[in-house]
Amino acid sequence: MKILHGGFSNIPGFLSLGINIGIKPKSKDFGILYSDSMCEAAAVYTSNAIKGAPLIVTKQHLANHKAQAVVVNSGIANVATGEEGKANALETATLAANELGISEDAVLVASTGVIGPQLPMKTIRDGIRGIKQQLQPEGDFAEAILTTDTCAKEICVTAHGITVAGCAKGSGMIAPNMATMLAFIATDADIQGTELATVLGECVDSSFNMMSVDMDTSTSDMVIVLANEKVQVSLAQFREVLEYVCKELSKMVARDGEGATKLITAQSEAAYSLSDARKIAKVIVSSNLVKTAIYGNDPNWGRLMMAIGNSGAKRLDQDSIGIWINEELIVQHGKAAPGYNAEKLRSILSSAQDVVIRIVLDQGTFSAEAYGCDMSEDYIKINAEYTT
Amino acid sequence: MKILHGGFSNIPGFLSLGINIGIKPKSKDFGILYSDSMCEAAAVYTSNAIKGAPLIVTKQHLANHKAQAVVVNSGIANVATGEEGKANALETATLAANELGISEDAVLVASTGVIGPQLPMKTIRDGIRGIKQQLQPEGDFAEAILTTDTCAKEICVTAHGITVAGCAKGSGMIAPNMATMLAFIATDADIQGTELATVLGECVDSSFNMMSVDMDTSTSDMVIVLANEKVQVSLAQFREVLEYVCKELSKMVARDGEGATKLITAQSEAAYSLSDARKIAKVIVSSNLVKTAIYGNDPNWGRLMMAIGNSGAKRLDQDSIGIWINEELIVQHGKAAPGYNAEKLRSILSSAQDVVIRIVLDQGTFSAEAYGCDMSEDYIKINAEYTT
Repeated sequence: MKILHGGFSNIPGFLSLGINIGIKPKSKDFGILYSDSMCEAAAVYTSNAIKGAPLIVTKQHLANHKAQAVVVNSGIANVATGEEGKANALETATLAANELGISEDAVLVASTGVIGPQLPMKTIRDGIRGIKQQLQPEGDFAEAILTTDTCAKEICVTAHGITVAGCAKGSGMIAPNMATMLAFIATDADIQGTELATVLGECVDSSFNMMSVDMDTSTSDMVIVLANEKVQVSLAQFREVLEYVCKELSKMVARDGEGATKLITAQSEAAYSLSDARKIAKVIVSSNLVKTAIYGNDPNWGRLMMAIGNSGAKRLDQDSIGIWINEELIVQHGKAAPGYNAEKLRSILSSAQDVVIRIVLDQGTFSAEAYGCDMSEDYIKINAEYTT
Repeated sequence: MKILHGGFSNIPGFLSLGINIGIKPKSKDFGILYSDSMCEAAAVYTSNAIKGAPLIVTKQHLANHKAQAVVVNSGIANVATGEEGKANALETATLAANELGISEDAVLVASTGVIGPQLPMKTIRDGIRGIKQQLQPEGDFAEAILTTDTCAKEICVTAHGITVAGCAKGSGMIAPNMATMLAFIATDADIQGTELATVLGECVDSSFNMMSVDMDTSTSDMVIVLANEKVQVSLAQFREVLEYVCKELSKMVARDGEGATKLITAQSEAAYSLSDARKIAKVIVSSNLVKTAIYGNDPNWGRLMMAIGNSGAKRLDQDSIGIWINEELIVQHGKAAPGYNAEKLRSILSSAQDVVIRIVLDQGTFSAEAYGCDMSEDYIKINAEYTT
């Protein structure tokens, strides 16, 4: 797996842009990812029962598993906006299709930002005019999709002769079950749409769906992949590269969680089933009390036991649990390990920006990994003042 | 329903105490609730799969639905302590039984505090000596059970000729599914043990289980009720009084949530089923993003829509949802209500210590109420430094 500099520009045929068109005061708020040929395409959507208007339009346009462009705005999520919101999402796709000279249903749309307000359609109509000329091999697409994120998150990987590039945004309202709010992935791999959808679903389950910043699943979550079919590859090899990209993007999102100071990786091992393994890894990165303890470098391992007990795992034997933090043995047979030293653990946590919590269950052979972040006063500050 | 001054002292036959025996440096850390006659008794326990040693002992002693005393310590939870922890919980019951001159299995035990350390048994053996003489009609029991709580929480109610008194502790690690960590209720009602258990379970479902401070369900949660059978009453009438006491205690716990500045009451109406109604009310008080918005007096109603969509409710029609905050109509037909004024809502929130969020679903006839609190920087501060 070789990581390349840059993002979408590594894949011939893809162009993009990221600009400010006036939805937000200054920062980039409008992005297009465009392929010069029709792509096989697939998407995974939020599990939230209330879905944003862009998801509804994108789902319709993806019925044939084909797409050629993705249009995204940040600033306003276009959720809870009724029929007017749906019409606005559709009009955005139509406007972009006309500018790009492609069919309307080849355009997918996504929005992220505040829930409630309508999209400023005049701003969008004005902003989208003549936009095809602004497309570049390496546009600022990854920047245009950000909200409270502190940095752009992109990665490009090559292996097995194919290249997969992706970017993601997400910082709050991030929870298991389609967590990233938005991620966009492009590849030159030759994979048919239905297979693309299956593989994407599997990769999302082991990456974005294993990430939590705050347990709140957004109404706008979506991961889209476009494959322009230039390079032959086996499905297994494609899956391997796609999963790597999804996991790396998930870690980037978790590390940039609102107010976060540390990336937390939770690993469960020797679980009874894959479902149990995932539940246990996920519950660790989802617990407010675990996250605040890690923030405070507090060697309070009792909260890990509490969280494991809340996981809903089917098979759990309290007296078999072992826990390591950054390779230091903390808990053995469900209680403090012999020689456990709270001060040593505090010092390990104090100097770590990456905290790896490894939990061995002794119930079977399954393992899983989940990604999250610690929780600081800044999470509260950011979220007590978001719409203002 | 008449509220009386004082707590357990209103019910003849009950005595209590709350003292410091040295488990914590200064504050009260040891309490006993004692009945001068054998009581019918019942309890509800945490849903956390990892359970504290005291719960295991209490469950064994309650097999015959009878008890005469409850012994509680705060400071150390006696969880994740292995066989030694179970032996210590049992010894605490035996020591108390000997002092009180009652049988060992008539004593229930409960502990709350840090998970992991063993109980200091020498301190407990010394502290418990001669304790019967310290029992009083109105002992400081409600104070002895506190941890990060900022105030004692007790209530006494009389109706239908019976009296029900209760106290609770709980401030963090409070989540749906047996939320209060600890609550103790005494009554003079004549109710048989099995019926007592059924009614307690029902009342807990509509009160403590509808409360959340931080989504983290403790390993030590327990609600115990002792009935000394002095007064005849119908089961329905008893249920009415017990439910009132449980709900009032739940609100007190939620209002005193770690770092809380406001009590949030979420009411769901016209839901498809009781399960849907409860899920929707609960998810509102459980969402970090709702809680931080309320803390910031931020009129960000989109987060309420997001939370409702995450509730897991079976029947939800986004376009039928109506939302009122402190009687102000905010959302109608799933989008901003005509005349909705963000500045007015901000001003309502700014001056309110009680925030009532009413959600009308238009899917059926069921309703529910849940209790929670806002989330401030102090929640982080308290929990980043708990064991230190």
